[in-house]
Amino acid sequence: MQGVITFTTDFGLSDAYVAQMKAAVLRIAPNARLIDVTHLIPRHDILAGSFAIERAIAGFDAGAVHVGVVDPGVGTDRGLIALHTRGQWVLCPDNAMITWTLRRHGGVTYRLTWRPPNVSDVFHGRDLLAPIAAMLSTGTSIDELGDPVTDPVLLDVAPAEMDATTGRVIHIDHFGNCTTNLLADRLPLGVRMVQAGLHAIGPLRRTYADVPVGRPLALVGSGDLVEIAVRNGSAAEQLGLTVGQLVHLRT
Amino acid sequence: MQGVITFTTDFGLSDAYVAQMKAAVLRIAPNARLIDVTHLIPRHDILAGSFAIERAIAGFDAGAVHVGVVDPGVGTDRGLIALHTRGQWVLCPDNAMITWTLRRHGGVTYRLTWRPPNVSDVFHGRDLLAPIAAMLSTGTSIDELGDPVTDPVLLDVAPAEMDATTGRVIHIDHFGNCTTNLLADRLPLGVRMVQAGLHAIGPLRRTYADVPVGRPLALVGSGDLVEIAVRNGSAAEQLGLTVGQLVHLRT
Amino acid sequence: MQGVITFTTDFGLSDAYVAQMKAAVLRIAPNARLIDVTHLIPRHDILAGSFAIERAIAGFDAGAVHVGVVDPGVGTDRGLIALHTRGQWVLCPDNAMITWTLRRHGGVTYRLTWRPPNVSDVFHGRDLLAPIAAMLSTGTSIDELGDPVTDPVLLDVAPAEMDATTGRVIHIDHFGNCTTNLLADRLPLGVRMVQAGLHAIGPLRRTYADVPVGRPLALVGSGDLVEIAVRNGSAAEQLGLTVGQLVHLRT
Repeated sequence: MQGVITFTTDFGLSDAYVAQMKAAVLRIAPNARLIDVTHLIPRHDILAGSFAIERAIAGFDAGAVHVGVVDPGVGTDRGLIALHTRGQWVLCPDNAMITWTLRRHGGVTYRLTWRPPNVSDVFHGRDLLAPIAAMLSTGTSIDELGDPVTDPVLLDVAPAEMDATTGRVIHIDHFGNCTTNLLADRLPLGVRMVQAGLHAIGPLRRTYADVPVGRPLALVGSGDLVEIAVRNGSAAEQLGLTVGQLVHLRT
Repeated sequence: MQGVITFTTDFGLSDAYVAQMKAAVLRIAPNARLIDVTHLIPRHDILAGSFAIERAIAGFDAGAVHVGVVDPGVGTDRGLIALHTRGQWVLCPDNAMITWTLRRHGGVTYRLTWRPPNVSDVFHGRDLLAPIAAMLSTGTSIDELGDPVTDPVLLDVAPAEMDATTGRVIHIDHFGNCTTNLLADRLPLGVRMVQAGLHAIGPLRRTYADVPVGRPLALVGSGDLVEIAVRNGSAAEQLGLTVGQLVHLRT
Repeated sequence: MQGVITFTTDFGLSDAYVAQMKAAVLRIAPNARLIDVTHLIPRHDILAGSFAIERAIAGFDAGAVHVGVVDPGVGTDRGLIALHTRGQWVLCPDNAMITWTLRRHGGVTYRLTWRPPNVSDVFHGRDLLAPIAAMLSTGTSIDELGDPVTDPVLLDVAPAEMDATTGRVIHIDHFGNCTTNLLADRLPLGVRMVQAGLHAIGPLRRTYADVPVGRPLALVGSGDLVEIAVRNGSAAEQLGLTVGQLVHLRT
């Protein structure tokens, strides 16, 4: 998917900031395919941004470049980072936005050192990450843009270990579905019951329609992670689940 | 408009689901033109989705493919359907999302039978509808993707009959304008008064500016349907109108 | 950036109106690059629309065409206007949406006279501005589309004079940052204190990180305008600032 550049930010949709980033890309890569992932990451919610970017990595193929801007530290000495994984690039502040992608897919990290003659101290998404994305997308080598680094900033969140029986909710989607860090291909054998907080949800189901409307269920969601849902309802609301909630697998 | 693919969903704008559908399209149709109609269809509101898709059909030309995903029945045995009308395709669950398009423009329906080697039970928009859209857009014959069907699921909503004097509100837009199912070219002659619920709105006007600011009016809207509006205000709020409200034409 | 067409409206994101405008563009300019600036301009807020369009002009380069539709006067005898500046076009109702662009960048204005055989009285964005944008983008001369005009409708807002010590908040962004009409390159020498209403904000800073988290600051924002912000917070909320608020520079 050479030429595809995606955007994940907390900029909202009411300002021209996203369009300005896209303009900065098109100036260098006029044929880039520009795809919005989301601009509604809650302000400064790095975990949410990290999860959205991993979902973009999982959706796209080699050649795609993903720009993430959730940047509470703009203007500090925080660096900018590039992560290369599955033939794709993630570009973002070195503030742990790469966490979920790196922990799930691995990859190689670089500190981005490229700087234009004039760079603002307030909008690195437009002035640094967008042009770097355009350059990587059109064939510039990472060697001209940054240096390998082995200590990127990371959050304390990771996929659960193989055969682990406890995970956590790491994302709540638009529908109130609660995604955990429990990977489908690492689950223990013979899970008989999924428990979220005090709620005994039931066994792992195949799909939402396996329970009556309005009832909770646990299933492997579209991201190959265990998810707590309510059929045609909101698990987050109905069960009072929030990010961080422990989820137990009873075997 | 060969190559144009549009998207109408209730996915919201805060998750990566829409981008994942677009990635699934680009994998097969790398040059597709991707256009968002809306992702803010209220959850599981099939009538609203049906109306938005018809507006897309009316706006675009032959060759366009429209993907609609409002899918409360994912994982049940509900099928997937394709509707061919005006040289364009609508692809969606067989849950009545095609209603308004089919009732207004006619067309031929197919049950989609194509399945990839691996298909999730939770995200048919990404795993089935997006690749099918890409294939239709790049020239694959419908014969390879589905079979003719004559009994698609439909809602009980249709354009009002020729010369009918009663219709219903079927959509309320961002501005609070209330669109009815009364088609401009089927109206009875000599409409002197439009009535919505208990409100006598007045005769059919040419445009919003034909009444003072803040006053209600009836006019033929941009979709060639009778619409109840308030100049520079919200008819839905000011008049308490909701979808389903009866609207009468007095001759 | 020949071929780029951007869109700034108050249409919201829940209807098909934006997609219909894009369809009208693609009918004439099938290879146009379509970029959304924002569709969340508050209904009929011409100043907000004017500011967003100027930010698009500043972000893009020669060749881009920017369509703005905040149009409380549709159906009245208000005209449509084109502004040519920096090699780019702004197209919008002649209702002052060009104000901030014209006052900041200058340019030449034209009244748009082109009309198709059938034009609605309710959706000029789709029926007039979109096709005109497509024509300008693909090389049609403005001489075929309109006539020079020297008295466009303008709002009473402009960049502050050279060395002026008083400005006003003209935009509040998604983060609550408050942008003023004080241009960075016109500031008086030796600004020691920026005052917004009763709040003494402090000197002009380089970036958000120059004050502790939660503290207000004044700085030159990404649009080269003086901005009142709160580090990792909302200046609008915390300081009670609104559009129109006076901002004083103490030397």
